Amino acid sequence: MISFNDILEARERIKKQIIKTPTTYSSTLSSMVKCNVYLKLENLQLTGAYKVRGALNRLEKLSDKEKENGVIASSAGNHAQGVALAAKKLGIKATIVMPETTPLSKIQGTKKFGAEVILHGNVYDEAYEKARELQKDGGKTFIHPFNDHDIIAGQGTIGLEVFEEIEDIDIVVIPIGGGGLISGCALALKTLKPTIRIIGVEATQMPAMKTSIENGKITTISKAKTIADGIAVTTIKENTFEMVQKYVDEIVTVSEAEIAHAIMMLLEVEKVLTEGAGACAFAALASGKIADIKSKNVGIIVSGGNLDLNFLSKVIERGLTADGRRCNLKIVVPDSPGVIADITKTIAKHGANILEIHHNRNFANTHLGETTVNFSLETKGHQHIEEIIESLRTSEYKLTRE
Amino acid sequence: MISFNDILEARERIKKQIIKTPTTYSSTLSSMVKCNVYLKLENLQLTGAYKVRGALNRLEKLSDKEKENGVIASSAGNHAQGVALAAKKLGIKATIVMPETTPLSKIQGTKKFGAEVILHGNVYDEAYEKARELQKDGGKTFIHPFNDHDIIAGQGTIGLEVFEEIEDIDIVVIPIGGGGLISGCALALKTLKPTIRIIGVEATQMPAMKTSIENGKITTISKAKTIADGIAVTTIKENTFEMVQKYVDEIVTVSEAEIAHAIMMLLEVEKVLTEGAGACAFAALASGKIADIKSKNVGIIVSGGNLDLNFLSKVIERGLTADGRRCNLKIVVPDSPGVIADITKTIAKHGANILEIHHNRNFANTHLGETTVNFSLETKGHQHIEEIIESLRTSEYKLTRE
Repeated sequence: MISFNDILEARERIKKQIIKTPTTYSSTLSSMVKCNVYLKLENLQLTGAYKVRGALNRLEKLSDKEKENGVIASSAGNHAQGVALAAKKLGIKATIVMPETTPLSKIQGTKKFGAEVILHGNVYDEAYEKARELQKDGGKTFIHPFNDHDIIAGQGTIGLEVFEEIEDIDIVVIPIGGGGLISGCALALKTLKPTIRIIGVEATQMPAMKTSIENGKITTISKAKTIADGIAVTTIKENTFEMVQKYVDEIVTVSEAEIAHAIMMLLEVEKVLTEGAGACAFAALASGKIADIKSKNVGIIVSGGNLDLNFLSKVIERGLTADGRRCNLKIVVPDSPGVIADITKTIAKHGANILEIHHNRNFANTHLGETTVNFSLETKGHQHIEEIIESLRTSEYKLTRE
Repeated sequence: MISFNDILEARERIKKQIIKTPTTYSSTLSSMVKCNVYLKLENLQLTGAYKVRGALNRLEKLSDKEKENGVIASSAGNHAQGVALAAKKLGIKATIVMPETTPLSKIQGTKKFGAEVILHGNVYDEAYEKARELQKDGGKTFIHPFNDHDIIAGQGTIGLEVFEEIEDIDIVVIPIGGGGLISGCALALKTLKPTIRIIGVEATQMPAMKTSIENGKITTISKAKTIADGIAVTTIKENTFEMVQKYVDEIVTVSEAEIAHAIMMLLEVEKVLTEGAGACAFAALASGKIADIKSKNVGIIVSGGNLDLNFLSKVIERGLTADGRRCNLKIVVPDSPGVIADITKTIAKHGANILEIHHNRNFANTHLGETTVNFSLETKGHQHIEEIIESLRTSEYKLTRE
């Protein structure tokens, strides 16, 4: 197991190469949950995630011979960019094996730092096997994303910063994927202040660490879909398992809806973009998963911000619909002139903006002489929607909110 | 005109009440434009914009009698929330007159801080007149958004921070609305380092300050639509006009497309949400509007982040389309079974995701026996789109990219 001193040394080793990310006070979440909430914004780190810290520490410690031979890693996400950037900064050749299904933005983000990208397999495990195979052949050093002392020590430097930046810190909430981030941070924080509470957060969909801790042994869970793809791990490893057992007080899980809502809040209120994994710790606090927080000073690690914008626009659309700021109405109307004009006039009178109209004459469940029109509206809240519906609900129109 | 000392005093007066916002290094923009770019993130300020600084300085300086009578302001945007929060912190009653067309999120944002909100008129000028009228009747103090010494001194505190946070700063780029922000910052920065270059940025759609400076007198311009609604001012005033004449070296303008692209880049690369006005300074640098920047240390003031998410999702959709990550195809096909299956199979083969299909049998320009299908796709870039189009462009299908 690594020591506190390894983390202090890691900090000296990497400090000129990384950003000392800002920590901000969240007044909205603080007043919502009645404690002082601080956000450590590692989404503003180089590459948009904390991973570059561990990668730099690991690569700096390679021997000259190893540096010359280059490094290899497998990842579909932030570890890829972290290793690629660290290698570029140190003049080391990096090869990254990514699944063929990796979004183009992440492939480009990795190539941008000069790494060679090999696309292989449909899932992470196939990319991992390929990387291991290439490593054996070529003498390159394999850089594991979390089961590695130097990686864990590098991520632990965030713990040192959090302790210095948040006065009288009581609780730190940290996402868990493989467990590298929380292991390093928990060791740093518990050494500096043994009474500090460390809380880990996993997606309810994939609680690999929680399951292993509860079973008392490393347990492989099945793969499931989650917005928090950055922490979707089926099997944690011995190094992080041992450290989490020793240093982490509690692990809570957050649902997909809670994560999505946290992404929205972080964007709209805190003005920062986070990926699903990066929003998990905030989600745990915002959704009341953490007990005994009243008046406490709580640090939230916002671990990454690499959310695909295609995906973000879907999160926003769903979030707006949940908040009553988007609304879909299905209206069955008489198939006669003037009806649409009448409905749109009513909608305009209420100050709602029409985003889309679908007028479908052949709808199967409609009587002859009737037609179905779907409206997508931009509205001002649930009460506003109710007012519009009230005005439209005449004897002629059959209206459903969808 | 205010003095440098007024700004130093403002800092002492407000420093416990505001956030000392972070300044981050933008590695992507730096390497794009070949200089060192730093972002002063005032979008992470309380209320999501810098306006609270000036409001706090102004309200702190009121006499006890004035504090008791309360304050009144008119605004559809960040000044409203700035005054409301400052008043709340100091226990002063605030009344804010907002146009009836103000988005609900901004009304709620202002009420949240305990201000009384009066909705009046369709445009800002009508709300302004109403506020002036109410002020005369009630003995309240009117808080002007920019033509006010204490407001300007409060905004100038950002200049002090920027100077301290960016080593060897050469150039600072600052958005101009009424000119309060740039006036205070320019005075602070030119006093601390007379050789510094101060560059103002306006929307090309509404260059009120640039026009006035060029004409040598305050000139009212006509109202126009712009994404940068936070700096859409038709008439600047004597205080800021005089200070901009004296301290600002140059004013450049940015187009709507340049602002939208800057919002996208700030979100996707820098992981922060900005409103149109807040992205203008970044847009000016990113779009090459500023000369002689090579190897210079450049500060960008990101002034605010209160962008409506309904609007953001439109900006993202357009931005993705411009980048080739969204694509709309119109395909005229024979009206026979199996055609859609054939097309969707081809699209799937290329790994593109179908977002929407509109199948319209009654399209006016189509021959009988043909039908038009519109596809909205999630794609991986312009080359990917070309590959899909190439595969679909058979003798049977007439295809247009929209």
